[in-house]
Amino acid sequence: MSTTTLPITDSAACCAPLTREALGASQADGLARSLKALADPTRLRLISIVAASEGQEACACDLTAPVGLSQPTVSHHLKVLTDAGFLSRSQRGTWAHFALVPGALDSVARLLTSA
Amino acid sequence: MSTTTLPITDSAACCAPLTREALGASQADGLARSLKALADPTRLRLISIVAASEGQEACACDLTAPVGLSQPTVSHHLKVLTDAGFLSRSQRGTWAHFALVPGALDSVARLLTSA
Repeated sequence: MSTTTLPITDSAACCAPLTREALGASQADGLARSLKALADPTRLRLISIVAASEGQEACACDLTAPVGLSQPTVSHHLKVLTDAGFLSRSQRGTWAHFALVPGALDSVARLLTSA
Repeated sequence: MSTTTLPITDSAACCAPLTREALGASQADGLARSLKALADPTRLRLISIVAASEGQEACACDLTAPVGLSQPTVSHHLKVLTDAGFLSRSQRGTWAHFALVPGALDSVARLLTSA
């Protein structure tokens, strides 16, 4: 038995795709917040690297070199993704590790899909 | 026979979901641009109203009241969505009409979906 779906926000979890019925104001606010967290090239690359890593998890120490940015900048972007519910963070000794939250990207994708 | 897929950008059209392999820099740029165009509550409501309208098309004259904003502000948001390839615009007499571009939202959704 597994629990694989952790919706990022109530608004992302609750609603029909936006092509099916007009979004209410609060639903639109929630989805816009989620999309804003994703709408940055560095954050997309970071979430993608984590997702493509073994176990969909990566050490922060392995995330700076691929994107070519400083540790503080990468930490900021990882915090935005964690606050938005796309990544989860766990500390192990010196380094934080980040894992993809199962179902979070799918919740957003579902809202954008017309089928 | 129908052609229902008009990918918004090459980057959105070409690539595997971001959870499958690490996104390259240019692919991340393209997807971030598309997500930025969507990441606004008013724009999400506008695209949703158009998509839920008959024939997935609406007159600009019917789009100001539902979002409670001025015509120039709504026109700006519609232009952002049109420039990003999510809506198409056609002039009929006095008013512009906006239609959902088939497949454009789905292209973005596909990149975010893990399945």
